[in-house]
Amino acid sequence: MNIHAPVSPKTDDVAVGPRLGSRKVYASGELFPDIRVPFREVELHPTANEPPLTVYDPSGPYTDPDAVIDIEQGLPRIREPWIVARGDVEEVAEPREVRPEDNGFAQGKHLAPQFMARRPIFKARAGGLVTQLEYARAGKITAEMEYVAIRENLRREQNQPCVRDGEDFGASIPDFVTPEFVRQEVARGRAIIPANINHGELEPMAIGRNFLVKINANIGNSAVLSTVADEVDKMVWATRWGADTVMDLSTGRNIHNIRDWVIRNSPVPIGTVPIYQALEKVNGVAEDLTWEVFRDTLIEQAEQGVDYFTIHAGVRLPFIPMTAKRVTGIVSRGGSIMAKWCLAHHRESFLYERFDEICEIMREYDVSFSLGDGLRPGSTRDANDEAQFAELRTLGELTKVAWSHGCQVMIEGPGHVAMHKIKANMDEQLKHCHEAPFYTLGPLTTDIAPGYDHITSAIGAAMIGWFGTAMLCYVTPKEHLGLPDRDDVKTGVITYKLAAHAADLAKGHPAAALRDDAVSRARFEFRWEDQFNLGLDPETARKFHDATLPKEAHKTAHFCSMCGPKFCSMKISQEVREFAAAMAPNAALGGAGAVDAEAGMAEMSKKFRELGSEIEVKVE
Amino acid sequence: MNIHAPVSPKTDDVAVGPRLGSRKVYASGELFPDIRVPFREVELHPTANEPPLTVYDPSGPYTDPDAVIDIEQGLPRIREPWIVARGDVEEVAEPREVRPEDNGFAQGKHLAPQFMARRPIFKARAGGLVTQLEYARAGKITAEMEYVAIRENLRREQNQPCVRDGEDFGASIPDFVTPEFVRQEVARGRAIIPANINHGELEPMAIGRNFLVKINANIGNSAVLSTVADEVDKMVWATRWGADTVMDLSTGRNIHNIRDWVIRNSPVPIGTVPIYQALEKVNGVAEDLTWEVFRDTLIEQAEQGVDYFTIHAGVRLPFIPMTAKRVTGIVSRGGSIMAKWCLAHHRESFLYERFDEICEIMREYDVSFSLGDGLRPGSTRDANDEAQFAELRTLGELTKVAWSHGCQVMIEGPGHVAMHKIKANMDEQLKHCHEAPFYTLGPLTTDIAPGYDHITSAIGAAMIGWFGTAMLCYVTPKEHLGLPDRDDVKTGVITYKLAAHAADLAKGHPAAALRDDAVSRARFEFRWEDQFNLGLDPETARKFHDATLPKEAHKTAHFCSMCGPKFCSMKISQEVREFAAAMAPNAALGGAGAVDAEAGMAEMSKKFRELGSEIEVKVE
Repeated sequence: MNIHAPVSPKTDDVAVGPRLGSRKVYASGELFPDIRVPFREVELHPTANEPPLTVYDPSGPYTDPDAVIDIEQGLPRIREPWIVARGDVEEVAEPREVRPEDNGFAQGKHLAPQFMARRPIFKARAGGLVTQLEYARAGKITAEMEYVAIRENLRREQNQPCVRDGEDFGASIPDFVTPEFVRQEVARGRAIIPANINHGELEPMAIGRNFLVKINANIGNSAVLSTVADEVDKMVWATRWGADTVMDLSTGRNIHNIRDWVIRNSPVPIGTVPIYQALEKVNGVAEDLTWEVFRDTLIEQAEQGVDYFTIHAGVRLPFIPMTAKRVTGIVSRGGSIMAKWCLAHHRESFLYERFDEICEIMREYDVSFSLGDGLRPGSTRDANDEAQFAELRTLGELTKVAWSHGCQVMIEGPGHVAMHKIKANMDEQLKHCHEAPFYTLGPLTTDIAPGYDHITSAIGAAMIGWFGTAMLCYVTPKEHLGLPDRDDVKTGVITYKLAAHAADLAKGHPAAALRDDAVSRARFEFRWEDQFNLGLDPETARKFHDATLPKEAHKTAHFCSMCGPKFCSMKISQEVREFAAAMAPNAALGGAGAVDAEAGMAEMSKKFRELGSEIEVKVE
Repeated sequence: MNIHAPVSPKTDDVAVGPRLGSRKVYASGELFPDIRVPFREVELHPTANEPPLTVYDPSGPYTDPDAVIDIEQGLPRIREPWIVARGDVEEVAEPREVRPEDNGFAQGKHLAPQFMARRPIFKARAGGLVTQLEYARAGKITAEMEYVAIRENLRREQNQPCVRDGEDFGASIPDFVTPEFVRQEVARGRAIIPANINHGELEPMAIGRNFLVKINANIGNSAVLSTVADEVDKMVWATRWGADTVMDLSTGRNIHNIRDWVIRNSPVPIGTVPIYQALEKVNGVAEDLTWEVFRDTLIEQAEQGVDYFTIHAGVRLPFIPMTAKRVTGIVSRGGSIMAKWCLAHHRESFLYERFDEICEIMREYDVSFSLGDGLRPGSTRDANDEAQFAELRTLGELTKVAWSHGCQVMIEGPGHVAMHKIKANMDEQLKHCHEAPFYTLGPLTTDIAPGYDHITSAIGAAMIGWFGTAMLCYVTPKEHLGLPDRDDVKTGVITYKLAAHAADLAKGHPAAALRDDAVSRARFEFRWEDQFNLGLDPETARKFHDATLPKEAHKTAHFCSMCGPKFCSMKISQEVREFAAAMAPNAALGGAGAVDAEAGMAEMSKKFRELGSEIEVKVE
């Protein structure tokens, strides 16, 4: 049970290069002309007679063939000039030194190498604004806000007709996102832009009910498994397939150094659960946790550039006995650590008691809160119980406290919840948490499919996303069974991308259906390559197609191996369309025109027979 | 593009033997003491202190170690004595001879071998009852009905307390299923028991909104791919993992002979789409289809023992122009064939015009109708449109006609439907189809994930199952891309089993939560083997677990590779429970007792610290 001998991650360890069938493009701002907002453009076959489709792209410079990637240097710090230009931060004169306990006392060959490239470390200047929430309230549109606005529009034209078809349960999704709209949403706490001032490498994104539904991928080593290079690779790999944020849930040794490598190379917000590292610092004995150790960990991670912290401040002493009769008790790691601490000391959680101080620290770096659901249900039987909802109400109370300090907040939720109990979660969250964005794990809609919990949870995730959840935390096939590897990460990300998209589509997000329609047209017109490339995973789609029809010629064939050439309903349907189009003007006459229409149809019928015979494809 | 040289399938070609961690058991009837209703019993670890869990088992004799399997003889014809004993059938004196066109004129080495074992061929005796619907209406409980009743109860005791927690949208699921309840449900057309009198090998099952949600797996060769042995193997493999019915959607040559092998070896109902074979008989030219060819095909397949026929009689001439503006037109193969025929002849569909005659034929063998949704949407854009719902209303009209002939009926539905439009499908179906069972493909909730459509559709399937759909037709990862292979079949079946179960759980089916709770308890108590075996796919769960912790000792370890030993929330939670249990009596005093409780808690707190220190697991 040893960690592999750690060596510095190398650029060769991560996946670089453009996505299949896609081209990286950038849009610049109007308020901030220097910002370059990335998109991925899917080029279509000339016969499509359609412009390329633009899709959201959280993959960072890794998918840009013109970018120079050097893992040991980290990504370019694009945000640093914006942050410095605002004049609200100062360099920390004496940053916190790395200490042996930060890496779980790992030493010698067990100590993961440090990330060496130097960078300034910032914190808020006394009296200055610093969080996106503070700027938004002050009426200031930041570069991050304009970046996000451009990003959310997917290069749709503002004057493009916008057909709305969905049920949004009271969301307020605009036809077109403006920087001012982003500012308003952030100002009222309905969206967050997780963006630590020490994460200069970040490409900003928004999490909120009135934006595209986002997904998070968890990575992280454990005491049992994984290396530094693996974690950097998994982060890059997750964003390549569409992860909007990544949580580094590392436990065990080397937590600090791994996190440095991950953040310096991450184009997406990085979230952590600081209590995990704090616990390592006290040798895993929950009772020995102190406010001082926790506080030190917050500062350590805030200086590193973590964008959001899960803080389980809602696990209050009086709620703990409410879990005693549960089938699976407390299943959140953070929640159980705090429960253990509370019981051992028989006192209220220091996270709850020190919440104001936590806010003060997080504000100084603009670390967003992800208020943790330490009492989430670990089985469908425990869903929506007293403990869970008592904690949720506390999170609502803490949201107001955090807001009063100028901190951005989102709220964590679900776990295992059968379908009929999902909506109540969203309703309660909206009711008690003042529209702060909801961020849910799954939920898993049944407990009986270990090995397939990406699917049991995609069902719940799509539903709760539809109801209003802003970000969905992925679940991989290894859930409950082991630490996800690279393949699991990809499967989890793609599964959650499709769930998030299904939610956008059902909400009637004006950008969502464009992609579905593009795939459907490609399908109907037998543009196989377009169908692959417009999908979430072109490589897999192509591989599946080629398993039975590998020849290049079959990529333009008007049939596939499912039905073979004679039976293709799409082909027949195209013939029907040509015919019906010709028939329609007559048919529309009705009444007195019906006789003429009859005659016309008989004629058409003859033509159709001729046409049909010609169209038959010869089978080899 | 040749079929492999066909040889007779052998017993070695199919998967036999018990499911991992399970034991095959049987229950007998009271009305019909000779029936043996199969179940699978999952044995639990002695520390569980629980009886084995009984689960539904459609896998037939293949998973019974005591059964003798001989593919060339077919399964034992358990139903034959029941059918004969009812005295309502007679042996067909001159059964239809197999003709060259039945196998698409395949000959020589291209002709698949015939299934040789002889059997009698039955049809209704003049004046006799023959369908399950007719018996039910006449107040007669058949052996099939008692079989189904026992099967649905999963060996729960009738006097067992039954906690109902769900939202069933107006379903009438009883606490306990009696044979009389089955009879009533069949009599009012709210459930069917697809059971051709020529499918003596069948283990009867019910499809209805007030029973467990069922799933169907499609198999079948195409002109491009597959062999006879492959199809028999896929059928056995699909039922092994939980398919409740199997549709043989073969096209191309050898359709007749493949079907014989499949039916003779199938313990589950087999469905087909007769128009596929009829089209082969006229060389794939839809316009050349005639009532006579179709009628001949119905009789051919009814004599073989097909349990349900998809009949696309709702694709009426006036509906076809309604599809002209669709993004993906008509995507049902049967639907497009009929549309082409209607247009070419410019006349009403012969399926619609000859519907009474079709009913008469199907009644004579008790072949159930699966009224086909030839105009189902092939893209989310086309969902719930005029064409789709016009056809649905016609299917409702035809349901009454079929019922008037004594035929059993279910209604096919969905395709591609975004989440916000799913419920309307169920509502419309209930409104217009008189509560005949709904049988839906997916629906797929987005079009953008080729390669992952088992998941895009599992989302929709779970939802529509919850709303009231009685059977879910699976979608495999190969959907839109190619013909599913063995692995795809398994993935599709497991995915749909979990979707169907999630639906049962949300509906509040009294049997559903028992399995979730059993898994959750196993999880909480670190009974790893039990967690694997209680799940839908023990092999995969075990493989995932062992990928990081392969040692046998880890199967009883109180941690896993996700968090490692120190961090396990489940372990901490158990400690919390012990503590809270001790604390609760004091806490419950409240008011005047609060001071005592305080003192008690302080004492407990001390104890807990001692306990906690002892419990720490030593890491290797």
